[in-house]
Parts: sequence; C-alpha cells; structure tokens
Amino acid sequence: MPSMQPMQDHQVNPDTTVIILAAGQGTRMRSRQPKVLHPLGGRPLLAHVIDTARALEPARIVVVHGHGGEAVRAALADAPVTWVEQGEQLGTGHAVAQALPAAQGAERILVLYGDVPLVGADALRALLTALDGHDLAVQSMRLSDPSGYGRILRDDTGRPVGIVEQKDASAAQRAIDEVNTGFLAARGERLAAWLQRVDRDNAQGEYYLTDCLALAVADGAAVTAVVADDPEQFMGVNDRVQLARLERVHQRRLAEALMRSGVTVMDPARLDIRGRVQAGRDVILDVNVVLEGEVTLEEGVRVGPHCCLRDCHVEADAVIQAHSHLEGARVGPGACIGPFARLRPGAHLAAGVHVGNFVEVKKSRVGEGSKINHLSYVGDARVGRGVNIGAGTITCNYDGAAKHLTVIGDGAFIGSNTALVAPVTVGEDATIGAGSVIHRDAPAGRLTLTRAEQHTREDWQRPKKPDPAP
Amino acid sequence: MPSMQPMQDHQVNPDTTVIILAAGQGTRMRSRQPKVLHPLGGRPLLAHVIDTARALEPARIVVVHGHGGEAVRAALADAPVTWVEQGEQLGTGHAVAQALPAAQGAERILVLYGDVPLVGADALRALLTALDGHDLAVQSMRLSDPSGYGRILRDDTGRPVGIVEQKDASAAQRAIDEVNTGFLAARGERLAAWLQRVDRDNAQGEYYLTDCLALAVADGAAVTAVVADDPEQFMGVNDRVQLARLERVHQRRLAEALMRSGVTVMDPARLDIRGRVQAGRDVILDVNVVLEGEVTLEEGVRVGPHCCLRDCHVEADAVIQAHSHLEGARVGPGACIGPFARLRPGAHLAAGVHVGNFVEVKKSRVGEGSKINHLSYVGDARVGRGVNIGAGTITCNYDGAAKHLTVIGDGAFIGSNTALVAPVTVGEDATIGAGSVIHRDAPAGRLTLTRAEQHTREDWQRPKKPDPAP
Amino acid sequence: MPSMQPMQDHQVNPDTTVIILAAGQGTRMRSRQPKVLHPLGGRPLLAHVIDTARALEPARIVVVHGHGGEAVRAALADAPVTWVEQGEQLGTGHAVAQALPAAQGAERILVLYGDVPLVGADALRALLTALDGHDLAVQSMRLSDPSGYGRILRDDTGRPVGIVEQKDASAAQRAIDEVNTGFLAARGERLAAWLQRVDRDNAQGEYYLTDCLALAVADGAAVTAVVADDPEQFMGVNDRVQLARLERVHQRRLAEALMRSGVTVMDPARLDIRGRVQAGRDVILDVNVVLEGEVTLEEGVRVGPHCCLRDCHVEADAVIQAHSHLEGARVGPGACIGPFARLRPGAHLAAGVHVGNFVEVKKSRVGEGSKINHLSYVGDARVGRGVNIGAGTITCNYDGAAKHLTVIGDGAFIGSNTALVAPVTVGEDATIGAGSVIHRDAPAGRLTLTRAEQHTREDWQRPKKPDPAP
Repeated sequence: MPSMQPMQDHQVNPDTTVIILAAGQGTRMRSRQPKVLHPLGGRPLLAHVIDTARALEPARIVVVHGHGGEAVRAALADAPVTWVEQGEQLGTGHAVAQALPAAQGAERILVLYGDVPLVGADALRALLTALDGHDLAVQSMRLSDPSGYGRILRDDTGRPVGIVEQKDASAAQRAIDEVNTGFLAARGERLAAWLQRVDRDNAQGEYYLTDCLALAVADGAAVTAVVADDPEQFMGVNDRVQLARLERVHQRRLAEALMRSGVTVMDPARLDIRGRVQAGRDVILDVNVVLEGEVTLEEGVRVGPHCCLRDCHVEADAVIQAHSHLEGARVGPGACIGPFARLRPGAHLAAGVHVGNFVEVKKSRVGEGSKINHLSYVGDARVGRGVNIGAGTITCNYDGAAKHLTVIGDGAFIGSNTALVAPVTVGEDATIGAGSVIHRDAPAGRLTLTRAEQHTREDWQRPKKPDPAP
Repeated sequence: MPSMQPMQDHQVNPDTTVIILAAGQGTRMRSRQPKVLHPLGGRPLLAHVIDTARALEPARIVVVHGHGGEAVRAALADAPVTWVEQGEQLGTGHAVAQALPAAQGAERILVLYGDVPLVGADALRALLTALDGHDLAVQSMRLSDPSGYGRILRDDTGRPVGIVEQKDASAAQRAIDEVNTGFLAARGERLAAWLQRVDRDNAQGEYYLTDCLALAVADGAAVTAVVADDPEQFMGVNDRVQLARLERVHQRRLAEALMRSGVTVMDPARLDIRGRVQAGRDVILDVNVVLEGEVTLEEGVRVGPHCCLRDCHVEADAVIQAHSHLEGARVGPGACIGPFARLRPGAHLAAGVHVGNFVEVKKSRVGEGSKINHLSYVGDARVGRGVNIGAGTITCNYDGAAKHLTVIGDGAFIGSNTALVAPVTVGEDATIGAGSVIHRDAPAGRLTLTRAEQHTREDWQRPKKPDPAP
Repeated sequence: MPSMQPMQDHQVNPDTTVIILAAGQGTRMRSRQPKVLHPLGGRPLLAHVIDTARALEPARIVVVHGHGGEAVRAALADAPVTWVEQGEQLGTGHAVAQALPAAQGAERILVLYGDVPLVGADALRALLTALDGHDLAVQSMRLSDPSGYGRILRDDTGRPVGIVEQKDASAAQRAIDEVNTGFLAARGERLAAWLQRVDRDNAQGEYYLTDCLALAVADGAAVTAVVADDPEQFMGVNDRVQLARLERVHQRRLAEALMRSGVTVMDPARLDIRGRVQAGRDVILDVNVVLEGEVTLEEGVRVGPHCCLRDCHVEADAVIQAHSHLEGARVGPGACIGPFARLRPGAHLAAGVHVGNFVEVKKSRVGEGSKINHLSYVGDARVGRGVNIGAGTITCNYDGAAKHLTVIGDGAFIGSNTALVAPVTVGEDATIGAGSVIHRDAPAGRLTLTRAEQHTREDWQRPKKPDPAP
C-alpha cells in the first residue's frame, strides 16, 4: 500500500537470510489444502509473506514447509526461495534449525511466519535495525487484551529477560500487556548455538524458538525487544474465522489506499480486491464491486453496484453499470456497459461503444460508437464503427467442431432476432432484416433478409385450459 | 450451531413445563404482522424459541399468545405446543398465570420469551440446574452499560434479594452492572402461589412476573440468580432496529459455525442464511451469497459473489459463478453454472453440465457434460448427454393451456436461435440448423432445419434520421 | 429523518443570516471536482448544508465559494442563496469577512461549513438559542479522543475564555475533552468588528475565525459555548476516507428512520439510499438494495437482494425479486418482477403483471395480469390485459432512424422467439406462432405466423473435431 510502504532508498540486506516457517498443518482450517495456500486478497498467505521478505532484499529466503509440501512448492514455483522440508512437526525451534544449513554464513537471520501475512516491511526493517549492537531482537506488541499470549518480562532497566506463557504466568505477570509475536531477528551464529541447546521438556514435546530468549539472557547476550506500532499486522491465521478477519483488514487497507489516491469507494467494507488495481483520479467504485487479477481503471471510470471485473482495462470515463461481469476485456473511453452485461476474454470495445443488458461479448472487436444494446451474443466477431446490432442477435460461431468469424462492416444495421451463421460478412452500411438467418455474405449498402411469408389461419383454435371441475 | 450445541446425552426434563410468552403486541414494529412472526434467519422469532424449548425435552411447552392470535397459531401450526390466549395485556405475571392451568402439575416451570430468539439451550439448562435445591432461579447478566434495565440486588452473602427498576434505583444501585433478563425457572407450586399475590400497583397497571422474586425472598424461599456468560443471547426485539441487530448476530453465529467446520466465507458480514445449510469441507462462499431453505453444498463447491440459492443440492466441486439464482435445483458434480444463470425448480443437472449466462432452466433434466451456454430457455425438457444447445434456443413448452415436453437425444447439436415447439423430439446426434423453428420430430444423426431463402433487395433504402434543423 | 427533525411550529429567523464556507480546495480529495460537490447520499455535500440552513428559515443564506467556483454555482443553481467569491484562500476569518457585505444588517450570523454535511437543524437551533443574551456562541463537543482538535478553555466559572490548538496545548490542556467544532453564532456587528482585528500572524499565514473568541473575551463580550449532544454530526470531509465514513453514518441514519417507520431492512449496513424514499408499512428491503432518486414503495412491497431502483413507484404488495434493475418505472399492485428483470423509463405495469428473467421493458404499458416471463425485449409497446408474451420475443421498434409502436390486444398469445416488427398491431386474443417475424398486423382471434418448411437433409455431415495428433 502506498501509504504504508513509502518509496525508499535502494536498501539491500546482503548479510541477512529470511527464514519463513510454513510447515504448520493447520488442522483447524479443516481443509484439503495446506494452510499457507489459503488465499488472502486472492493470493496464498505465503505469497504475501514472501513478497514482504523480498521487499527487504535479503541475500536469501528459506521457506520451511511440512511433510508433503509439494502442493506448496508447486503453487509458488516461481518464488525465488530455497525450500526446506521439516519432516516432523517438532516445533518452531526445530523448524528454524532445519533451515539453518540453507542459511549458512548469514550474519543476520530474520524469522517470519507463513500464516502471518499482513506484517509490513517497515516493521521488519525496524526489527533488523534494532538488532544493531545486539545478538537477538524480539518483536513484541501491546494488546488491550493480552490473554493467551506469552508475556514479555523485562528487568528494572527495561531489558527483556524472558517470555512467560499464559498458563505459567503469575497474576502480576498476566497484567503485562506486552506480548511476544514470535517474530525475531538474531545473529546467525548465536541463533544456531542457542537452537542446539533448546530442549523439548514441555507439555507439547516441542522445540520452541521462543526459548532462545532465555538462553540468550543466560548467556549474557545483548538482547532487545521492539514494540510494534501496529499490532494488527501480527495477527495470524489458525482457522477460517481468523482468515476472514484478516481478509477484511487487508481489504480495508487496500480500499483506504485507493481512497487516498483519489478514488471514491462508496462503501469500503463492501469492496473486494484480489489482485492489483490501478485506478485513476475520480474513479468511482460503487458497493459490492469485486476486482480480480490485473485491473486498470482510468481516470473518471465509474463502476456500478454489484459488478465483477477480472483482468480488465477500462479507459477514461467509461461507465460500467450495475450487475455487469467483465473478464479479460478492454473497454474504450466513454463506453457504456451494462447493466447485466457480460464481457468475456478478448472483448475489445472501442471508444463510446454501448453494450447493454443481457448481452455477452466474447473475443470480438467492436468499433467506435457501435451499439449492442439488448439480449445478444457476439462471439468471434469483428464489428465496425457505428454499427447497430438489434436485440436478440446471435453470432452462430460454432459448428460443433470449430469457431468461425463474423465480420460486420462500418455503419451496418442488424435487425433484431437475427442469426449470423459464421463464417459470414455483412458489408458496410448493409441492413439485415429482423428475424433473418444470414448464412451467406450480405452486400454493402443493401437490405438483406430471410423471411417466410406471413399468413393467418382461419381454422385454428388456441388450446383452452380445461374448465375447473365443478 | 455445532460450536454452541455440543452433542449430549439423552437428557429429558419430564418434570418441566416451558412457558413461552408471545402475546406482546409489538406496536413499535409498526406492522400488520404479530411481532413474534417477524423472521430471523428466515423463520419466525417464536419458532426459534420453540426450537430451543424443544431441545430441553420438557414435558410440555405452553405458548401464550395475544388476542387474535390466529395468525401466530396458523404460522406455527405444526409446533407441538399448547396454545393459551391472554385476552388482555395485563403484564408478564398475568400472562404466566394464564398458562398455569395448562402447566398443571409441573414440578418445574421455565419462562421464556417469544421475542428473545437467540437464547441458547445451554444457558437454559444451566438455569434449570441452578434451580436444584432452590425454589426460584432468576437469570441475570452483566452489562457494561446497564442503564434502562432492572438491577439485581444481592445481600452481603451474595443472595439475590430483589430487583430495582432503573427509575427507582439509587445512584449506588444504578452502578450495579448485574441486570435482570426476565428469564426464570421456578418450582411450579411456589410460582403459582406467588403469582396469586402479585399486584398491579404500578405506573403501567400491570402484573409483573419480576415481582415474584421479592415475594419469594419475603417468604424465605430459596432463591438464586445465575449470571449468563453471553449476554448477547438475551437481547430482545421491540422494534425493527433491534430485529436487524439480532439478525446480524444470528448470521454472524451461523457464518462462524460454517467457517469452523471448514467452509471459507469471504466476508462473514455479507452472508445470509435463512434455513439450513449443510456444507462440505472446502466449500467457498463468496461475498453477498444468500442461502434459503434447505441447501446442501458438497465438498469443494464454490459459490460466487452475489448468488442466491434456495432449496438446492450442489454436488462436489461444482462452481456457481457470480450473479446466479438457483431455486429447487440439483447440480451435478463438477458442473459449472453462471454467471447470470437462473435454475428454477426441477432443474436437475448431471455431472459436468455447463449452464451459462442469461440461461433459464426449469423442470428439466440435463445429461452429463451437456452445455447450454448462452441466452436460452430450457423448460419441461429431457436433454441427453453431450448435447450442445446454441445461444438463443427456446423450448416453446406452453401452448396457452398446457405445458409440453421437449426431448433432446444424446449428442445432439441445436443451432443458435432455434425454437423447439413442444411436444417435440430431437434424435440422438441430430443437428438443428440455426434459426429454425422445429415443430416436428427431428431424426437422429441428420441435419434438420427450417430456413427461408436469403435474398437482397436492390431497391430498398434504410430510413435516415432527419437532418437537424439549420 | 423523521426521528431527528420533529414537526415544529412555524419558526422563522428573519434576523439571521447563515454564512456557509465552501471555498476549501480539498486537495486531499485528489479530485477534478470541488470538494463540496462530492456526493453524500447521492447529493453534493453542500446541498445538504444548504438544506439544513433553509430549515432554519433565515433571512438570507450566503455561500462563500473559491476562485473558479462556477462548477459549484452551476451544480446548485436552483439553491436560493447568495454567492460570494473568496478569491484567495486566506482562512476562515477571511472567508466570513468576504460574506459580510452580503449579510449587511443581519442581527445574527450563523457560520456553517460546506464540508460538514451531517449537522442537524436542531443543533443549530440550540446554538442560536444559546446566543440569546450573548454576543458570541461557540459550538463545542466532547470527544473520547480529542487529539488534533482545538480545546475549549473555560475559566473557574465555566465561561469559555479561549481555544488552544493541539500543538500549543500544555499537557493539562491536552487532557481537556471539549473541543471546538468551528461552528459559531454571533451578533452581526460584533462579529464584523472582531474580524477586522483578526490577524494572520500564524504558521499558515491565515485569518482564523476561531480567533474571534479570544477577541470577544478580551472585549469583555458575553460569550458562551454549547456542547453538542451528538458529536458525530460535526464530522467533516477532508479526504475520501472521511467521505466514505460519513456516507455510512448518513446511510445508517436513513436506514434506522425507515426501520422505525415500519420497514424491515435485512441489513442496515447494506442499504444505500441516494435520494428520497417513501416506504409503506411492512415493506421489506433485502440485502444490498440501492435506491436512487425518488422512490415510492407502497405497503407490503418486497425488494429482493441486490436490486437497484431509481425513480420508481411500486404499488402495494408487489414483489421485486433478486438482481432486478428498475429505473423510471411504475409497477402495479401485486406485480411480480424478476429475478434479473430490467425496467427502463416509461415501463408502466398494471396490477399483477409478471416480468421475469432477462426481460427488458422500456416505454411500454403492460395491462393487468399480462406476463413477459423470459428473455424478451418489449419497447415502445402497448400491451393489453391477460397477454402472454413467450420467451425470446423482441419488439423491433427501431428502424435505424425512428422508434415505432407495437400494439398487442387483450388476451393475445405471442409464441416464443417472435419478432414483432413495429409499427404493428396484434389483435385481441390473437395467437402468434413461435419463431415468427410479424411485420403486418395480425388479426384478432386468429393464429398468425411465418414459418418456413421444416426439412431434413440426408446428405449432410456435422463437422467433427479433428482427432488429436497421435
């Protein structure tokens, strides 16, 4: 988000390895899918964390996945990370230990979590900065309700000296509102040494990364704890209730960034962005708009209520009316789409085109100022400028085996309820009579039609509903 | 909800009668309809309370309705309750007194309210349990803002000794945050005796059930008050603002239960369930989905934004795309529906069927893998497997008096803009030419069509818009 | 809102001039449009403030706009106000000073803000009342988080003696929770005198209206400060995040007023009203309804999820089903519209009409009980009573130059997939065969059709998809 990730100097951390723990099974998700692949804003949780790690420009990013992590690796195959498998789920300390060989020689190690996707690069930079002159920097936060979290214990000088878990905390300790986030940065060699000494003498029988703090203090190492400005970013996902909560936080942030850049969002609680949106000044997004993939909305574009757009480019001042569904379309400046319009991939509409209700356009170019206002299907077509396509027009583009092209020249007028049996060409300024089935080319400037004679039967009686039983 | 109503041992309360007060006129609702019939989650408020009462398995449920309660009785005619009329609105004490004859012999009486629909069976069980060894158990709750409520007064030993209404309370009493919910459980005989002594010497001139507490204390009866864990469940409905608030609480609970069972809900604040939903693992419900009646969504089903489903069964991994409207439909595994699809009762789609935009299907079976992708109406039809129905196809099922059947064999191909005048049969692997009107059976394996000759008129001129006045 | 603007005696303030400051450039809006023209509830911010000012019935309303305020004046050309230009943006004190010549002779002056649109007339009346016996009355409010606001300083007697800005406030002053809203009422002559003495010796180099308080105190003038009951109404708009927040407050208030008047709103957070709604008792508005312009919904009307209505009148007990879009339509009692219906301006439907899915009706009268249930376009038509229009019917109303009329008599039956080429008349009780193109009048009581012979080709082979390469 622009407001949270200000432009900055070229800042590289070549002495740092980021380790992302992504091996948790996530049983409370009750899913066939690994937890870190569940989407937030349309992308896997882990993808967000990797993006944030990349923003730090570290020497290396190591991701620790669980047993059978093929799905995770496959979903993020393009990510420039080193994958490490944690065969057994023996705790966070064990997980980081698995990653250490891949992090060999790193002066600094930063530990992130694949299920804590909202953490910001700024906070992580601050944590790395805090590590200066220290061996270990722990990320903490203050919560108005800290119950359930491990509390940060500090001595009289304010130095952190330990973390006490909720169940082990005294009443006084429970009153502490500074809690552990699990995020930490450490000197690589020291961390490796502490991890070798962490044991699993606890109820879960797991190796806890957290225990490194006590070991560091016992060693007399230089330890610090950084309190986060914005605790919200450290919320994690353990079940789908939490996932939904983070989705809303994420969406609210995206909406606010858009609004601050000059976009009117009619209700920020009812906008969903699942991908990347570029929006010009004075764009208006009405309620319940869903934007997916790469969406560009130029200056002055208005998107009506209940519209879904995926991978679209809408040029300046075009209007997308309510209940429209656009995918893979390009809409020209000042065009007017909908309500109830469906644009499918390859719909490429020039300036001022009108596409109205119950109209589907697929893989077709439509020229400037042309109109397809009602109940039509235009697929695999090249439509010229100033064309008027009447209600109920169908391009019959499929013969059961292949798709064929329909070409309609500039200024043509297609009468209503017409079937254009492709491949077929309608000439410039041609007129097609209503209700025709056009299977041969129609010449320019002429009226072409197919029409059976209209006749009236004198003898015929419309069936009548039987009288109700007496 | 799974999370709130855990499975439990067969627990019967044969010594208990539940009395539900449902006689309030609800003038602040400003409605033609009795208050307790206003819906919450698609069902009358009173139906929720009766369901909760039934979960307790009491000997009897007595519902006290007001003068002219026919509408209430009619709406809940199937409920296994005893109806009692309270002819005049003389207060809660009077209402319970009217019910006592029907509760005759009950060892325990539990009083509920028809306009307090969210109360949970667990809380009521706890209240009944608290009655053990007591004559009267009052349900209280703590509120951060108790103003307006009657405060529970306790003596130095913590024993409840009275209830003081807001207007009569001293400053010290107003600081009490424990308030009366109106819910109580009592020994049947004792309650009857107290009610006989309740008077109406108050501003409203009503008999208050609440007064029983003071009488019980005066009698030296054994009295207790139970503080609820979850005050939200005791919120009542007096106007439509409160009704809307409870609707949201109810919906949030339903959404959370779904999420905890393995369903992704893109925005829990934008899901509406009005009936019963069974949803398999990894079902995804996008924003603004409305589910009504009995809806079953098998594992992996995805429902897109802005969809409405009522009384539907959707099999595994089917996809319902945005803006679709399904009622009384069955959708086969892996089918793909929408966007902008309308399935009406009796639409029965086999595996892998595609129903696309601006398509209506009614009372029709569609075989495996068949496609109806654009702008069509298929009603009263039997469509085979592997059929392709072109855009703009209409089954002309109605002759003004009766509906007739269209049969389309496996592998048939229906050209676009075709009218199938039922009763009619299209044979297997038949092809129908675009723009045809088929009123006789079309043989298998052949091309059948109706088509007038295409011709072009040399002499015709398209009308022109008059030049604008100079 | 009914609940907040009770009927009152004819109360005129002929001695009062209202000055509305509307010259702020609003750079944080990042808009081509002046800030005060951004809409709230579908109308410009400034229009709300002018309406509120008019409710006070003052002698005069003076609006101060900025350099190049033509767009503002044009957008509100009908408003009975005096426009004054503030050529340079030299602060609020300077802005009010520009307005003083137009306010000449006013006994009382009330200063409002064009970007604070929710302020209520009741609060302003209270402020004017507070001015009685005083020279200056300042509007204050209490905030739980007052940071950023100017704090009201009072002496030991409670008299306001100054306003201290956040940056100049001592720790003790920062603890004050009473803050300045900027709204004030003053004696006209006194205000003019103080404004002449306000200087711009401050960081911004601006003349602050606020400074009048200190000058008044220094003069020994009678000064008072009124604390608002409802601080929410004084929220202003500086950016689009704030605009969205106010939109939601405004919408919540509108929804609550509707609910208190007897309308069920399924989710008040998902209703948008941009104009004026009159709704009868027991109207039900389902989720995500958008109402624009002048909308009248008579008693018992139900509007389904995801519907948009603009400038419509829907008569009693009509049902608008999900996903419908109505504009400029009149819907008769008991009619049933949708789902997926589009009514455009001039659609005038009588009692009991059915308009179903993927149907567009424009500038047409439809008689009692007629049905247009599926995939049709009816434009420029007069449809009688008891007419059944089959699926896929199109009125071909446009010949490329002009629109023509279609007339359909009572009791007619239009077979599916029919094109009615206007101008054309279908007689009473006439029947039109499916798939016809009717270009001449069809007589009453008879079957009329156009139909080419159906034939089957023995020799034709449907193209086959090529076998995949081996």
